[in-house]
Amino acid sequence: MIIVMRHGATTEEILHVEERIRREGLQPHRSGGVDTTVIGVIGTPPYGMLDRMELLPGVERVTRITKPYKLAAREFTASPTVINVGAAAIGGPGVVLMAGPCSVETREQLLTAARGVQAAGAHVLRGGAFKPRTTPYSFQGLRDDGLALLAEARAETGLPIITEVMEPSKVPAVYEVADVLQIGTRNCQNYPLLHEVGRTDKPVMLKRGLGCSIDEWIQAAEHIMDQGNMQVMLCERGIKSFETYTRNTLDLSAVPVAKRLSHLPVIVDPSHATGKWYLVKPMAMAAVAAGADGLLIEVHPTPDTALCDGAQSLTIENFADLAASVQQIAQAVGREPAALPEDVPVAAG
Amino acid sequence: MIIVMRHGATTEEILHVEERIRREGLQPHRSGGVDTTVIGVIGTPPYGMLDRMELLPGVERVTRITKPYKLAAREFTASPTVINVGAAAIGGPGVVLMAGPCSVETREQLLTAARGVQAAGAHVLRGGAFKPRTTPYSFQGLRDDGLALLAEARAETGLPIITEVMEPSKVPAVYEVADVLQIGTRNCQNYPLLHEVGRTDKPVMLKRGLGCSIDEWIQAAEHIMDQGNMQVMLCERGIKSFETYTRNTLDLSAVPVAKRLSHLPVIVDPSHATGKWYLVKPMAMAAVAAGADGLLIEVHPTPDTALCDGAQSLTIENFADLAASVQQIAQAVGREPAALPEDVPVAAG
Amino acid sequence: MIIVMRHGATTEEILHVEERIRREGLQPHRSGGVDTTVIGVIGTPPYGMLDRMELLPGVERVTRITKPYKLAAREFTASPTVINVGAAAIGGPGVVLMAGPCSVETREQLLTAARGVQAAGAHVLRGGAFKPRTTPYSFQGLRDDGLALLAEARAETGLPIITEVMEPSKVPAVYEVADVLQIGTRNCQNYPLLHEVGRTDKPVMLKRGLGCSIDEWIQAAEHIMDQGNMQVMLCERGIKSFETYTRNTLDLSAVPVAKRLSHLPVIVDPSHATGKWYLVKPMAMAAVAAGADGLLIEVHPTPDTALCDGAQSLTIENFADLAASVQQIAQAVGREPAALPEDVPVAAG
Amino acid sequence: MIIVMRHGATTEEILHVEERIRREGLQPHRSGGVDTTVIGVIGTPPYGMLDRMELLPGVERVTRITKPYKLAAREFTASPTVINVGAAAIGGPGVVLMAGPCSVETREQLLTAARGVQAAGAHVLRGGAFKPRTTPYSFQGLRDDGLALLAEARAETGLPIITEVMEPSKVPAVYEVADVLQIGTRNCQNYPLLHEVGRTDKPVMLKRGLGCSIDEWIQAAEHIMDQGNMQVMLCERGIKSFETYTRNTLDLSAVPVAKRLSHLPVIVDPSHATGKWYLVKPMAMAAVAAGADGLLIEVHPTPDTALCDGAQSLTIENFADLAASVQQIAQAVGREPAALPEDVPVAAG
Repeated sequence: MIIVMRHGATTEEILHVEERIRREGLQPHRSGGVDTTVIGVIGTPPYGMLDRMELLPGVERVTRITKPYKLAAREFTASPTVINVGAAAIGGPGVVLMAGPCSVETREQLLTAARGVQAAGAHVLRGGAFKPRTTPYSFQGLRDDGLALLAEARAETGLPIITEVMEPSKVPAVYEVADVLQIGTRNCQNYPLLHEVGRTDKPVMLKRGLGCSIDEWIQAAEHIMDQGNMQVMLCERGIKSFETYTRNTLDLSAVPVAKRLSHLPVIVDPSHATGKWYLVKPMAMAAVAAGADGLLIEVHPTPDTALCDGAQSLTIENFADLAASVQQIAQAVGREPAALPEDVPVAAG
Repeated sequence: MIIVMRHGATTEEILHVEERIRREGLQPHRSGGVDTTVIGVIGTPPYGMLDRMELLPGVERVTRITKPYKLAAREFTASPTVINVGAAAIGGPGVVLMAGPCSVETREQLLTAARGVQAAGAHVLRGGAFKPRTTPYSFQGLRDDGLALLAEARAETGLPIITEVMEPSKVPAVYEVADVLQIGTRNCQNYPLLHEVGRTDKPVMLKRGLGCSIDEWIQAAEHIMDQGNMQVMLCERGIKSFETYTRNTLDLSAVPVAKRLSHLPVIVDPSHATGKWYLVKPMAMAAVAAGADGLLIEVHPTPDTALCDGAQSLTIENFADLAASVQQIAQAVGREPAALPEDVPVAAG
Repeated sequence: MIIVMRHGATTEEILHVEERIRREGLQPHRSGGVDTTVIGVIGTPPYGMLDRMELLPGVERVTRITKPYKLAAREFTASPTVINVGAAAIGGPGVVLMAGPCSVETREQLLTAARGVQAAGAHVLRGGAFKPRTTPYSFQGLRDDGLALLAEARAETGLPIITEVMEPSKVPAVYEVADVLQIGTRNCQNYPLLHEVGRTDKPVMLKRGLGCSIDEWIQAAEHIMDQGNMQVMLCERGIKSFETYTRNTLDLSAVPVAKRLSHLPVIVDPSHATGKWYLVKPMAMAAVAAGADGLLIEVHPTPDTALCDGAQSLTIENFADLAASVQQIAQAVGREPAALPEDVPVAAG
Repeated sequence: MIIVMRHGATTEEILHVEERIRREGLQPHRSGGVDTTVIGVIGTPPYGMLDRMELLPGVERVTRITKPYKLAAREFTASPTVINVGAAAIGGPGVVLMAGPCSVETREQLLTAARGVQAAGAHVLRGGAFKPRTTPYSFQGLRDDGLALLAEARAETGLPIITEVMEPSKVPAVYEVADVLQIGTRNCQNYPLLHEVGRTDKPVMLKRGLGCSIDEWIQAAEHIMDQGNMQVMLCERGIKSFETYTRNTLDLSAVPVAKRLSHLPVIVDPSHATGKWYLVKPMAMAAVAAGADGLLIEVHPTPDTALCDGAQSLTIENFADLAASVQQIAQAVGREPAALPEDVPVAAG
């Protein structure tokens, strides 16, 4: 922490700040310029100290110099985190494809999608049983029945399952079926929920909040890790900006930035970010070129009858085309194909 | 719903769209321009229909023409909603002041703050027992002990209590103590939580999400109301923008807009929005001039020792000054003083 | 300037940074923490130095501690800048009203508007002769003919004129007619234009750019002042955010912030910010409550026939109502009525 | 244009709207729903009509259904625009690399950079002679001397030149030297400047404004084209968002969107967008994967002594590495290498 004193701060004010730093159990270190006095704080500041220092007379500005997270920080481990899901190693050399419908609608819809994405090379099946919907009048998901269908699709195809959990009390039920617990964008800073999945031993995919900075997003991951669960992957899915042509603004720079700041794998969801099926393929390719470890793609057997997010869903044919193109990019950036679940049997959840 | 066909769409494509509208149980109404065909849809579209229509061949764009909420819409009731909290009528002619510390820290801190804000004219005491904090290493609140202290402050001063609830399972405990259940900005779209408070009979204050449009915010209120609880007040507390001098960007236009679109009362929280104590008073005055029904203000007996958000907290003296200035503005815009709890005894929660 | 070294930076790297600081003609001041070394730089850094330091091996981050502007900074002068326009003192105790049509359309339209706003208490007449329009197919203004009509309106009513200048070569022609030269939001960082108006002796109103931070906006003012013209007033008129109900997001916190950082007067334009006539009055009142020194309001005799921005224009009756309400707020915040041009004859431009 | 009447609008109001549409010279077409009446407008609406209609009694909302640009619209031409610059065909199958220093500083710096980027495969040399700088105290460029050095670099290497022009009166001088006239982000909506370059016969690169939507950006291109110059390329260079780790937020979705809406080539500038040299390569690769026709990259022989934007400049070695990696991505997306200037002699400007 660095405290910049106001131009013209008195010696008394400077001494008072230094005394307050000592009262917080830390050491001040003064650095006097011609115009401005700067006081460095040696040691780890306790909570709220930045705010408290800012209020002292003569203080112009207080700046933090240490990162507000530890477990998620790149400095924390020597090597990037790799998370095994089914046969795929997320964060390893391969690019992992997670695909499936926005929401589970019927047995047939889910199984058709599951077989389709599997044939096209998907490593993980996505599908929502519990759906956060902006309006209460939209389809809210099949809920527990949806979980049962996901379990069936898993049994039949061997594809591991990623599905969203929306509230702490539902974590046990979703845990039974899911291979990866998904935290949605609206729950990125739902701390009781983060703590609850942090107490499980299943991998968690944390979607960036629509209004969250990269820093706040990694701190949300820290909330999960602080409870003991180190298997967290980050998912960029678009942020709010003034541009309205796309549903949100996919912040692909967040991929290399998050990988520089943290050792956690980074996934990209171009379907929700863009909201338009015809933008999914170019942005999926761009995501992999930017260094993404995997993709989350909405696929529906018949998007024009989908109960949810049809406009951004790919048909199975379009997904197969995307998978092939993404593979080309993956090779161009020196990544291997990730192992598919056919190759390795998946143990029951 | 209006479907704009692409320039040069074929008759076959137009007929296909019309047939699909009928299959959704609705009536199409074609309106042929020189260049462009527009098809109006008569009736209430089922969920997902907009997305489904957008995918049909020859369709350029689909626009919704009805609002996505009903219970919260101004058209729904003849008169604005008024919520009685203690002696104050929120949404009535008076401007209601809710004030107190960001978080409950100690018995003495809370009671000093409570007595101080009461003397200065506050109608409701705010104080956080459960605190959503960006980093897991900050003070997370006194939790159940904090609730007990709030109950004590209520008993001693007669001030009704507003305090945050962060997860569905804690709603009963918070319900016991609170006169108003607060939903924080990070939980604005936490639907299981909204549904849970929607099943109680206590007033709810819904803070706008940092990344939520006015439309999404009112739809979140609709989630609460759809469960039966009509006593919802909206709270503008700043949104994310590129400006970094203030913590967030207080969107005061949202006050007259929300009051035009909805019949619900609108509160403004200038403390969290600006993040700087010296901006709280001018923005509180501006909020009332813009039509706010009340203010939520952070007050701490000694901000420079606060465990949380000290930089944006007012001293009790500064709050008294704010209250007087706000009163001047309230008179200038033709509002009466709201009734204070001294005048009317508050029944136990 | 403060240079934070990376955790684990070597002594060699630290010495190299210190040597480079000396090569820039400045003094380093090392402040060694347990984990992190911080090097303060004593003296004024030359341009580009921050970027250059950031690239040196072992450097984590470089932070500027001095403001990037001088002439516009509050520290620069003992008292706020007051700009006399006609009889009104902008930045003085009165709240100044500038009103008139978005664009000058006809002689009758302009004179009707001028007489109307004068009767309602306006101090300055606004009207655009040169119009920046998003599309080339919109009305671009009457140009030189518009200037002539403004001169006529000025002669007839005695109201001083504020009008926009869009390019350096037009500054002399606009200078002849205008009492205040307006720089539009799209030209906030058009430096050749800022320099040109900076070389005149007429007051300049600088609208904040739609994508400009408060800091960038004040630096734009510094470009004008650096050429010798100290009569600059800032105008907040909304920034881009994700909210789409309003045309832009009026950032009223920018009013007290800009007045804290700078000694320049601050005007607010609620018409362009909101884009809706029914939001103009509440936001005008809020602006004055937040401390604005004046308002810029679009008024049209018949908004529903306006060639430009009709939806956000007030009728003359609505403007009179706004002026009366604003006056109430001005009194509530302790401001006097500003002098009107009837009281003092205006000298020719 | 579609006019949605308010729920409960009277027949009189509907008839009045229809009459007003006829007075604008167009035909109304009513489409009566159960609840809501919608009136389509047949024909091209004159300027300001949308605003005017919005003000009529009983009108809820007015929506435009035609795009606000024509010449730039994809529908306008059968095939994408290809712009020949030196030997390179921008918008053709090859990916074009434009590289060089942010600003021309010295003869040696420029020529070293020029030879370096040429050896690494650049097609066009960039370099700023006139620099828009946020603060007046930064280096503003060598101006006319910089142009002379660019001409020399062009003569020596054969590389065509792209350089910025900041004001209408400087267009002739820049025209003499430049092969492509660059319009900077702060001038994206500087219409007099757009009109001036629109009256030349040199290609123009139009950078997206920091606060401009895709729609506003394409409309700015329309301003240039409307003056007769059809050789316009668009350049995405980051927009303002709440994320602060990167200088701006690179909106790569804008690449496929702009290419879908318009026939103009799209270039990406990852240097200014990210502001950090280590993000330039991944974002350059992502840009090409997303479909960009070319890249604009800052390269400096010694970034740590640069007078401008050193932190985001690549060394020549790093640029060579980027060029090779981009080539891999280009192949993966099926693009050919663009022709280099060695292959074809460049005619004098």
